[in-house]
Amino acid sequence: MHKIFESEIAVRPDDIDVNQHVHFTKYLDFMLAARYDQMKKDYKMSMEEFVNRGLNWFIKSFKVEYKRALKMGDIAIVKTQIESYNGATVVVNYWIYKKGETKIYVEGQAEFVLLSIQTGRPVRIPDDILQIYSV
Amino acid sequence: MHKIFESEIAVRPDDIDVNQHVHFTKYLDFMLAARYDQMKKDYKMSMEEFVNRGLNWFIKSFKVEYKRALKMGDIAIVKTQIESYNGATVVVNYWIYKKGETKIYVEGQAEFVLLSIQTGRPVRIPDDILQIYSV
Amino acid sequence: MHKIFESEIAVRPDDIDVNQHVHFTKYLDFMLAARYDQMKKDYKMSMEEFVNRGLNWFIKSFKVEYKRALKMGDIAIVKTQIESYNGATVVVNYWIYKKGETKIYVEGQAEFVLLSIQTGRPVRIPDDILQIYSV
Amino acid sequence: MHKIFESEIAVRPDDIDVNQHVHFTKYLDFMLAARYDQMKKDYKMSMEEFVNRGLNWFIKSFKVEYKRALKMGDIAIVKTQIESYNGATVVVNYWIYKKGETKIYVEGQAEFVLLSIQTGRPVRIPDDILQIYSV
Repeated sequence: MHKIFESEIAVRPDDIDVNQHVHFTKYLDFMLAARYDQMKKDYKMSMEEFVNRGLNWFIKSFKVEYKRALKMGDIAIVKTQIESYNGATVVVNYWIYKKGETKIYVEGQAEFVLLSIQTGRPVRIPDDILQIYSV
Repeated sequence: MHKIFESEIAVRPDDIDVNQHVHFTKYLDFMLAARYDQMKKDYKMSMEEFVNRGLNWFIKSFKVEYKRALKMGDIAIVKTQIESYNGATVVVNYWIYKKGETKIYVEGQAEFVLLSIQTGRPVRIPDDILQIYSV
Repeated sequence: MHKIFESEIAVRPDDIDVNQHVHFTKYLDFMLAARYDQMKKDYKMSMEEFVNRGLNWFIKSFKVEYKRALKMGDIAIVKTQIESYNGATVVVNYWIYKKGETKIYVEGQAEFVLLSIQTGRPVRIPDDILQIYSV
Repeated sequence: MHKIFESEIAVRPDDIDVNQHVHFTKYLDFMLAARYDQMKKDYKMSMEEFVNRGLNWFIKSFKVEYKRALKMGDIAIVKTQIESYNGATVVVNYWIYKKGETKIYVEGQAEFVLLSIQTGRPVRIPDDILQIYSV
């Protein structure tokens, strides 16, 4: 089992849609923002360092389930956990909460693939990065 | 098997992200825009008519798989098809293409739930609406 | 001269556009998010309290000048200051910085108008609210 | 006086905000989308051709005035007209209408600056481009 990391993201007025809730796609942006934050804060290898090595992470697929809706003024807590990795891909589970509550608001799973910036093709995750992600 | 309907959506500059592609969440916005368009154009019951009856569709869950990326200046063709319905929910398959090509760029499945605006709770899809969606 | 208040907003990946910078419209969203934050934090009358009184602030006009661009991973510092008020309108100056720097990145002026939610028409700012905004 | 060009942009559900209107920053995205469209359609020199010559247009400043609000299902008509050019900058007036109406919904002026992609510095608009923009 890999460690669960968490990030805090304040809902902004431009995240709210016609239904007075956070727009359904913004939770995915929160998840991505949390991964960027955690790459730097928790894995100690930021997205910039990947780019400097000619590598880039792309989202290959994801699933999301909406249980409750965040609203104006809420703060999202985004937890993510690596489920598995294989070849060029990493599968990440994520859960979004409202700060101060224990109920899950949104949950899902995303599959990221490591690409070579030069060729645009998948690249087997290098051993030193696997090491970093093994926590 | 239900009918497949399609809508055209021109990519806008604000859909493009740091990777020079349509941002991964925008395809979901395209899918939703296509459903709105098709509710009016193909099912002949617009979102406004649902709201006038005190009903609103929400996204309960979805899955998405990214195969290719749309770019600046592209036009998206978004096809959707009802897979099934049950109680308050409708399951919709969707496929996104680049206009002028036959390859699938993005595909997935979304689950919509019909809610009462007054109570915020799921409502069994009324028979006349099931009829409309049975094409 | 009115007080200058400030809010911190972390740039998210979905704020970055094709030019690797914060998208030009997002600075306006940052300004609006800062005003919401400061309504609660500094003026002690949140947007929700306005809505509860049947009032809503709308943006009537603004000007913006771009001097430098924020990037992925930056934190925006958004300062705002009431310039003047008259009838139903408030004129607000704003300046956006990069956290840790003193140079102005973006600056401008926005005109907000107070509307009645019921009528949709401008409402003279009530005296108790003028009092709150007189700091 | 330069020619006025126009583009049509269908409002999408993700353009609508908590006030049931097109979000205030989206009109600027519509204006930018219209300029991209008109660069290709009317000036016959697309943004891609600028980039291929090592040039990129950036927004340096703009002003916007909101008069009426577009809603879900509306189609925006965006008209733009070059006001003047000087050195590296072009000043463009824009007006946004609702398709089928003659009233102005949003209007403003934007200042664009031509930058060298290599140096990031302003570049005097080349004579052949001035020629293209002189219509």
